[in-house]
Amino acid sequence: MALLDWLLGRRLATLEEEHQHIGPAAGIPVLGLDALSSAAYGPEAALTLLIPLGAAGLGAALPILAIICAILAIVYVSYRQTIAAYPNGGGSYTVAKENLGPHLGLIAGAALAVDYILNVAVGISAGVGALVSAFPALLPHTLTLCLAILVLITLVNLRGLKESGLAFMLPTYAFVGTLAAVILVGLVKSIASGGSPEPIVAPPAMAPAVDVATAWLLVKAFASGCTAMTGVEAVSNAVPIFKKPAIPLAQRTLTAIIALLIALLAGIGYLCRAYHIGATDPGAAGYQSVLSMLIAAVAGRGAFYYITMGAIVAVLALSANTSFADFPRLCRLLAEDRYLPGAFAERGRRLVFSTGILVLAVLAGALLVAFGGITDKLIPLFAIGAFLAFTLSQAGMVAHWKSLRMPRFMVINGAGALATGATLVVVSVSKFGDGAWLTIVVVPLLVLFFLRVNRHYRVVGQQVATIEPMEMPDRADPIVVLAAGSWSKMTQQGLKFSLRLSDDIYVVQVKTETSTTEELSDNWELLIANPARRNRIAQPKLVILTSQYRQFLNPFLEFVRDLEAKNPDRDICVVIPDLIVSHWYEGLLHNNRGSFLRLILRAQCSDRVVVIHTPFHLHD
Amino acid sequence: MALLDWLLGRRLATLEEEHQHIGPAAGIPVLGLDALSSAAYGPEAALTLLIPLGAAGLGAALPILAIICAILAIVYVSYRQTIAAYPNGGGSYTVAKENLGPHLGLIAGAALAVDYILNVAVGISAGVGALVSAFPALLPHTLTLCLAILVLITLVNLRGLKESGLAFMLPTYAFVGTLAAVILVGLVKSIASGGSPEPIVAPPAMAPAVDVATAWLLVKAFASGCTAMTGVEAVSNAVPIFKKPAIPLAQRTLTAIIALLIALLAGIGYLCRAYHIGATDPGAAGYQSVLSMLIAAVAGRGAFYYITMGAIVAVLALSANTSFADFPRLCRLLAEDRYLPGAFAERGRRLVFSTGILVLAVLAGALLVAFGGITDKLIPLFAIGAFLAFTLSQAGMVAHWKSLRMPRFMVINGAGALATGATLVVVSVSKFGDGAWLTIVVVPLLVLFFLRVNRHYRVVGQQVATIEPMEMPDRADPIVVLAAGSWSKMTQQGLKFSLRLSDDIYVVQVKTETSTTEELSDNWELLIANPARRNRIAQPKLVILTSQYRQFLNPFLEFVRDLEAKNPDRDICVVIPDLIVSHWYEGLLHNNRGSFLRLILRAQCSDRVVVIHTPFHLHD
Repeated sequence: MALLDWLLGRRLATLEEEHQHIGPAAGIPVLGLDALSSAAYGPEAALTLLIPLGAAGLGAALPILAIICAILAIVYVSYRQTIAAYPNGGGSYTVAKENLGPHLGLIAGAALAVDYILNVAVGISAGVGALVSAFPALLPHTLTLCLAILVLITLVNLRGLKESGLAFMLPTYAFVGTLAAVILVGLVKSIASGGSPEPIVAPPAMAPAVDVATAWLLVKAFASGCTAMTGVEAVSNAVPIFKKPAIPLAQRTLTAIIALLIALLAGIGYLCRAYHIGATDPGAAGYQSVLSMLIAAVAGRGAFYYITMGAIVAVLALSANTSFADFPRLCRLLAEDRYLPGAFAERGRRLVFSTGILVLAVLAGALLVAFGGITDKLIPLFAIGAFLAFTLSQAGMVAHWKSLRMPRFMVINGAGALATGATLVVVSVSKFGDGAWLTIVVVPLLVLFFLRVNRHYRVVGQQVATIEPMEMPDRADPIVVLAAGSWSKMTQQGLKFSLRLSDDIYVVQVKTETSTTEELSDNWELLIANPARRNRIAQPKLVILTSQYRQFLNPFLEFVRDLEAKNPDRDICVVIPDLIVSHWYEGLLHNNRGSFLRLILRAQCSDRVVVIHTPFHLHD
Repeated sequence: MALLDWLLGRRLATLEEEHQHIGPAAGIPVLGLDALSSAAYGPEAALTLLIPLGAAGLGAALPILAIICAILAIVYVSYRQTIAAYPNGGGSYTVAKENLGPHLGLIAGAALAVDYILNVAVGISAGVGALVSAFPALLPHTLTLCLAILVLITLVNLRGLKESGLAFMLPTYAFVGTLAAVILVGLVKSIASGGSPEPIVAPPAMAPAVDVATAWLLVKAFASGCTAMTGVEAVSNAVPIFKKPAIPLAQRTLTAIIALLIALLAGIGYLCRAYHIGATDPGAAGYQSVLSMLIAAVAGRGAFYYITMGAIVAVLALSANTSFADFPRLCRLLAEDRYLPGAFAERGRRLVFSTGILVLAVLAGALLVAFGGITDKLIPLFAIGAFLAFTLSQAGMVAHWKSLRMPRFMVINGAGALATGATLVVVSVSKFGDGAWLTIVVVPLLVLFFLRVNRHYRVVGQQVATIEPMEMPDRADPIVVLAAGSWSKMTQQGLKFSLRLSDDIYVVQVKTETSTTEELSDNWELLIANPARRNRIAQPKLVILTSQYRQFLNPFLEFVRDLEAKNPDRDICVVIPDLIVSHWYEGLLHNNRGSFLRLILRAQCSDRVVVIHTPFHLHD
């Protein structure tokens, strides 16, 4: 317990919840890291696909980034509305479920869940990838580094919302601040030089064009750039974590995140063109990331360069944090609707949904281990889940406003639905061959899983539900079966308890290779028969079972099942004396027949067989 | 169960034991593989230390092997006597314990146990090493091969004695047969040529002498050669596995094993000298084992060479089998004297001591994994345990005959004790620096462990032992605490059982985040109070606990402990309704609070708190 206290902090009372709520300053690191980190890889992803166009690619990149920013703006306005309409957390799951029906809600939920899990694995692995390319000596430790960061983020999140906001504030604001400085300086230089600034460190000359711009290529570049949009729904999903008044604070947080993201994307796009910076082939020698070239061109390779690059690496690795804020809340909603076990809906010691956090960590950790810490192959899968959820959520909002007869709001969310829906189609088609079809398999399987879980709970509900008042026990006492070893205080105590329950007691011994039964049978008169006569109670019956196969469990089970069959109208209580040692390792020195016996009776007998352990504590 | 039947064979009844007994033909593979395989590495071990002497080393080797054969003969005669004196298995542990006292017995037992575990790891690893040096492509799979052989030997042994005798008969007799053929042919050729036979494949010329024979070098060579003697005690330890009459059959088996081993050692020693074959440096290029050179010299490198080498590799790898026959019997004896848990004394489904077999496999597997399948470093540790046990056993036999006043037998075992004791001193001193000191640490620790285990059982015995007759339950009924969820058939059933036990019933609900308590409190009158009045029984009391920390277990535990403290003279029965699902994976969808509650009540409360699970089975 002391270790947990030290690792996670003391247990928080439910009444302390108010103090765990956050404002926009902490909200941006907690909910915005996923979206903001997109500035580091979104433009790069689009430019990489434009490499075959040579310098002409830069001309094509600007309009693509402009379209992405425009869609972002539309999505922003729609999600602002969603926040106001669903102050209890209007994630895609809730909005789709309430307005489009439970099945579409589950599809949105499953798509988001997959997106969150992938985001953790891909984010951490991208950050570690950047770190390792800066310090190649770390290469053999890629997986270890990934898992260490995963454990760190998990622990911070288990410590509570406030702590994760504090922990991630510094890298977030370092990232935004340094990148914004680069963009501002670059803009000033660019304007001062009439659009052709002189780079401090010249970027490598762009490769000559080997291809002309086809519509298909541009569409693919756009689809890759769209990864920049994941994480935008995070705030709307988590409105209840904000201080009062939650709605305006959440909206303000969303505004800040989207405004910063658009500014960074637009600035990076403009400066790439001004400084003639294109992507380099990630597989080839001399690879350098677009941001690295851009920062060096604007600010040189001094201390500032290394600080900025360090902040970028940190934010990439920590972008997983957004999933840790949202995935557990999504699971909580699913659990409340009984699509997941109830444990997901219970807040742990620090008032966060610990079960969801741990499950997310385990699943993402499994992905990292399976891919050895290098998750490039997962990136294509990534945006589809997010856009599927976006589209369903926006469409749900359209239905919502329609039922409320508010056509003006309907138009805004309608535009969002169209924009994200179109993007979804583009991304799905252009990424299909890269593995996006996997999403099409995993999401339906997950939906099926949710439905099966729900069906199980409904079946249980039907079987255990009752409105009948309490029943009196049957007239007949139960039959008691005492699992006896040799005569000892344990057996004595078990027999004493048995006498409370019934006059109809079987003292059952199983003769195995190592047990002796003579002790009890030889002294039966003295130990049992005489006291029974003296107290005028019915004689317990001694039964000695022999096992031709040297087993204890089977003969005992057969005896109980036989009794059960022969006495269809009586309960059977199996009393098992239970030796309790002071230290767990002493337990290894004793057979745990009692526990096995309980498990096997539970599995093989009916409701009429009740197992009772009478405890006997050993003292040191 | 079907899988186990297929893997291990059907369960054997205790009465079928007779059919599992074996004769000398199967006894030699079961108990002799360890001793016989020594022929493959004993002479090599001695010759390797004599490399610095060049050709002169061969002259020194013969007397060393002669001394080893002489000690073997003495040990043989003594163990023959031991077999007759202890027909229930006169392992070193029993003989030392009964004649020298329990502590020396435990030392012998611990030394043998260590020896057996090392033998498994070293034997398998030596066999795989020989295989890998023949097929270097297998080198990266060394550990996998070692573990595969370990699993194979374990499974065969779990299938029973008879099956392991059958399984290992072919390699054993192939080994003995082919090596005997080589020696016979070599002897004939040698005699025919007047002592200087012409090799078919000439062995490499021996390296020139770089050193002269010192006493210390000769002693070290002798100590290394003594590894050939391990495994000799195996038969005496396992007399009960033989058919009737067990004593002569066991003696005949021992005679056959020792005679074969002496013949092989003497033959190899003689032929090495006749053909001028010395050891080559195992670390250097061009290394070839002594037996490989000898077989090639006598019989050439035809098919016969490969068959013989294959048999040697197989016997090396399978020499571990002797440990699997003896270690479990040693553990059984220790368990019967309560130095180990009773499970070691129970025969499993195939009438062998399965627990001991599995523990041996796990320990040897751990050693193999720890050393990556290459256990050269363990070889020096190997002979010491064996010779320590031999010496104690022989000394014990001396005491035995002394007490029976049979001086003739005393002299024979006395000679054995002297020979093995002297060897023990020589081996310990000469191998001390190579790691033999480890044995001096491990054996006492193991003895300490045995003593601690025994003390625990004695403490338990004192605390649970009683000769008092059965007691009647106290007049006062117990207090019943029903762990209730919402009103359901499970709760109903738990309450019905509670009414059997007492009129003093607390229905306890804990209000956590996800549980509702209103259902029961709002309908209390209808569900509980009215029926109680109608049946003229005392009203159960409803208790609703709220947890400021969202926990279920702690508030419940506190309530029970409080009741326990306030009612020092009454028993408390905690009734926990238990939902039983049809498939194990459905269990994951339900919290297992009932099981946790039982564990925590068991650990934290006194003997007066009895836990009762009332089962409720779900149906498909």
